[in-house]
Amino acid sequence: MKQKRVTFADIAAYTSFSKTTISRYFNNPDSLTLENQQKIAEALEVLNYRENKVGRILASGKTEFVGILVPNLYMHYYSEMLSQILATYETYGYKFLVFAGNERKDVETHYIQELLAYNIEGLIMLSPTIPSRDLADYHIPVVGIEREHAHICSVCTDNYMGGVQATSLLKKCACDILIHVNSRMTEDAPAYGRIQGFLDTCREHSLPHELILTDLGNTFEENRQRLLTLLEQLEDRYPRQKKGLFLSNDTHANVLLNLLIRKYGQLPPTYRIVGFDNSPISSEAVIPTSTVGQQIPRIAQEAMDLLSMQMNEQKKRRPTPLTKPIHRIVTPVLIPRETTLP
Amino acid sequence: MKQKRVTFADIAAYTSFSKTTISRYFNNPDSLTLENQQKIAEALEVLNYRENKVGRILASGKTEFVGILVPNLYMHYYSEMLSQILATYETYGYKFLVFAGNERKDVETHYIQELLAYNIEGLIMLSPTIPSRDLADYHIPVVGIEREHAHICSVCTDNYMGGVQATSLLKKCACDILIHVNSRMTEDAPAYGRIQGFLDTCREHSLPHELILTDLGNTFEENRQRLLTLLEQLEDRYPRQKKGLFLSNDTHANVLLNLLIRKYGQLPPTYRIVGFDNSPISSEAVIPTSTVGQQIPRIAQEAMDLLSMQMNEQKKRRPTPLTKPIHRIVTPVLIPRETTLP
Repeated sequence: MKQKRVTFADIAAYTSFSKTTISRYFNNPDSLTLENQQKIAEALEVLNYRENKVGRILASGKTEFVGILVPNLYMHYYSEMLSQILATYETYGYKFLVFAGNERKDVETHYIQELLAYNIEGLIMLSPTIPSRDLADYHIPVVGIEREHAHICSVCTDNYMGGVQATSLLKKCACDILIHVNSRMTEDAPAYGRIQGFLDTCREHSLPHELILTDLGNTFEENRQRLLTLLEQLEDRYPRQKKGLFLSNDTHANVLLNLLIRKYGQLPPTYRIVGFDNSPISSEAVIPTSTVGQQIPRIAQEAMDLLSMQMNEQKKRRPTPLTKPIHRIVTPVLIPRETTLP
Repeated sequence: MKQKRVTFADIAAYTSFSKTTISRYFNNPDSLTLENQQKIAEALEVLNYRENKVGRILASGKTEFVGILVPNLYMHYYSEMLSQILATYETYGYKFLVFAGNERKDVETHYIQELLAYNIEGLIMLSPTIPSRDLADYHIPVVGIEREHAHICSVCTDNYMGGVQATSLLKKCACDILIHVNSRMTEDAPAYGRIQGFLDTCREHSLPHELILTDLGNTFEENRQRLLTLLEQLEDRYPRQKKGLFLSNDTHANVLLNLLIRKYGQLPPTYRIVGFDNSPISSEAVIPTSTVGQQIPRIAQEAMDLLSMQMNEQKKRRPTPLTKPIHRIVTPVLIPRETTLP
């Protein structure tokens, strides 16, 4: 199974060039004639030479590694974001060392230390567990995606605009009462913008509304139980009124839709629903569900752009640190489907 | 932003130990007294020392890197498998360099060459694109998961048993006709076992059956269109008969279920459905759907076990290559839910 590695000496012997010439081929190819470059390239092919970047890392100090820490890959939002970040390899050439976190600060801190030990050039943080102040203290380029980012660069969806879009769509359905269901969060979480966008739109147009901040649980079964209870409360509170429901993600919107279908065999005319994210579940639901779409490929692209800008700065002889973090905002796209027909 | 790296000399100066002693702390800590170990550990804390594994790699030739090539992260099966493989870090300590493929052999071959350039110690292949014969020629430890594996080690679900389980479940529903829908594939694809298990079970019990091998497309909308056409054909062919449908994955089973619910407001008594994989969609569907569950955490664990065995062998002075690849099989678990009630 083991195969001896081909060395510069082997290539030199095969081509009758000196080892110095072979070295120049790798480090400064244009110093050789095209003909000689061609000869060496052919030799590499014949000898089945395998480039050893570890040696080059040691010479340059640059690994071309970027670390990624995602909270989980269960939520489609994260697996899709990871997929889009990995795809930037074709543009930027960075390789990705990936860890999936577990909401424990000590464990995730250990993961980051592992990444640093391998000289990652930059870090993309999707996990919200470690405060941005701590991340800034590592003194490496960092970009946070859709998480608290006071002390690091970031890319986020315009959550406020998303909240406005969702609420305006429900307004057009002529609902009697608008209801936004979300989890409790601090105002520095980017997703808080959805709540603010909902409240501002309702107040601006004097629309009757209710904001329900509650923990819907971390598993599907918890989601289902708690949304079932919530649904019973809403039917008690607003029995014959047309209810416009804005859920904070498509998973919750789908659970609610399915509960209604099981009860009524259809989406009753007294319910209108809009979710968030444009996850596959929203289009694949039993009734295709309206949603506010996050532009995940755009967000991944902006994050790598922001990170590579910082990494390139670090490669300079005298890097100029950013005076303050850069925050980029990506516009969401409203996608009306069958659950918000007038 | 840039911070000078702390060196052994800095630690030696701070602790008043020699550089040799500091080196011993990292390479053979038990040769120092506990008290001195403690002193050095405290100094590392104060100096904010960051371990540099790149140097150690060069000394040992071992990177602790494992490469992973997944076909995509869109299918929940792959993102869940990746998640479970990443979680083995806690047990094995290997870090993962991840690439998502695109069904193009030249591109995926380039990814593997990138991984080899970084001295990965082993490779986990979920992507089916590159034949196992080519993978074996790289002469590094490889494990394939649920893909063609004639020339490499592998871990697969017992697809034949899964086919038998699904068919037996439909048999208990007293269906008039059993139908298995799958894609066309060669007999060396592990998933072919599902087809064989279906056929053998039907023949053994003399059950009327039909095998439909067809391409249902690569997007949800293609799936939906083609399954709608298929459904119309089945209603023509078996109008009042009780149809037992075994779909090759939960995504397809869910599309079919939703088409029936949209048409009838419920799952009609003339239809029974079972899927494959135990993807979240199967339990989260409008009617919780019966399925054959793949034990993804078990499969990930077996794959890393098989890979680390080979990687440990490579660390020996005279590694003994495997005389032939090892293939491990993981039993699937039948999960009856509401779509196969008698």
